[in-house]
Amino acid sequence: MDNKYTTVIIPAAGKGKRMGAQISKQYLEIGDKPIIVHTIEKFDQSLLIHEIIVVTSKEEMGYFKEEILSKYHFNTPIKIVAGGNERQESVYNGLKNISPKAEIILIHDGARPFISKEEIEKSIEGAKVYGACVLGVRVKDTIKICNEEGYVESTPRRESLWAVQTPQSFQTSIIMEAHRKAAEEHFLGTDDATLAERLGYPIKIIEGSYENIKITTPDDLTIGEAILRKSL
Amino acid sequence: MDNKYTTVIIPAAGKGKRMGAQISKQYLEIGDKPIIVHTIEKFDQSLLIHEIIVVTSKEEMGYFKEEILSKYHFNTPIKIVAGGNERQESVYNGLKNISPKAEIILIHDGARPFISKEEIEKSIEGAKVYGACVLGVRVKDTIKICNEEGYVESTPRRESLWAVQTPQSFQTSIIMEAHRKAAEEHFLGTDDATLAERLGYPIKIIEGSYENIKITTPDDLTIGEAILRKSL
Repeated sequence: MDNKYTTVIIPAAGKGKRMGAQISKQYLEIGDKPIIVHTIEKFDQSLLIHEIIVVTSKEEMGYFKEEILSKYHFNTPIKIVAGGNERQESVYNGLKNISPKAEIILIHDGARPFISKEEIEKSIEGAKVYGACVLGVRVKDTIKICNEEGYVESTPRRESLWAVQTPQSFQTSIIMEAHRKAAEEHFLGTDDATLAERLGYPIKIIEGSYENIKITTPDDLTIGEAILRKSL
Repeated sequence: MDNKYTTVIIPAAGKGKRMGAQISKQYLEIGDKPIIVHTIEKFDQSLLIHEIIVVTSKEEMGYFKEEILSKYHFNTPIKIVAGGNERQESVYNGLKNISPKAEIILIHDGARPFISKEEIEKSIEGAKVYGACVLGVRVKDTIKICNEEGYVESTPRRESLWAVQTPQSFQTSIIMEAHRKAAEEHFLGTDDATLAERLGYPIKIIEGSYENIKITTPDDLTIGEAILRKSL
């Protein structure tokens, strides 16, 4: 496959409130390493990734340099960028700092440490072929759409539902335009693909794995330890 | 609260294929008891439940009697009913065997052992007030509705999405009519509420907890053990 210059943006500015922890949840440990280190390592180990941009909060840039960058060794060039108030703003700050050579952009979560080599490859390939793609898994629960009073409005067919994860992957021009327009128009989406969707770009789902969880609550740490033990 | 005769129907006929196990997943153990025993105990301990109907596959009725009923002691009257080919048919078989006194029907899953006393009470109260209600939790993932080619069609607003669980709870006449019509018209829904929804009955969401998980895959067993340890 032809090797386009590929950048991954990893926002790692989440406050970890739901963890009851003082530090951002990405710095909590699974196994014997911070979650963010597991996450970065996955991309660092991929030969298809040329640049890693980590977006942290302004206050935690120093912590990140001392506790992560100076203690762990990565081979891929890493840039640290200060984030904004919202995740979306943080990603946009990351986008403004990519290499001029970047043709493919992956946007991942710092708190998704179980992304696999194969899923990274599928994401890059998907961006090349489709322009925009997101990793996702089929929804197992029955989902109901409800009104504000808590009454069911409809039950979408389960076969049509996907829970999307990251990486969300794009050709550079598409995601740049999507974020620029969203910023100009003060549109806030729940994920990056939504910003491209609203401009009419087709988004392809790439089937991923249920193990690619986001570590958000203390329960997720327990699950994370179990996934890690299994994969060792 | 006025104490209407309340029956819980617990389908426990699932084959456990995804567990890679020979016996149905409900008979696997968490802590030192089969999952189905944890589940039945929760309803047995509620003073608001007057009757428990367990629906097993025809082949496992003997196993259930020997391994569960003769080894564990429950105070609430328990009836065992043979299930059908589909979960929906199993529930309907259960409904045909309820006490003539039953005014409120709860339909639960044999593989959801972490239902709490409070959630059972809220479910019964909800059925009295609203006619039909389902326990559910807010969806944390971004969900996308996709077409058959795997392209995103829309991203419903996350605030409107609920992942529904069980119990799903009903006034007897509503759920009886819903199942009878579905059977006559060969309509198969992903959950019991859908059968009432299609007849135009309003369904109210009752907010539950993320711990009320369904044990479906081996990973869920690990999570289940963690939830159990926490609650002891």
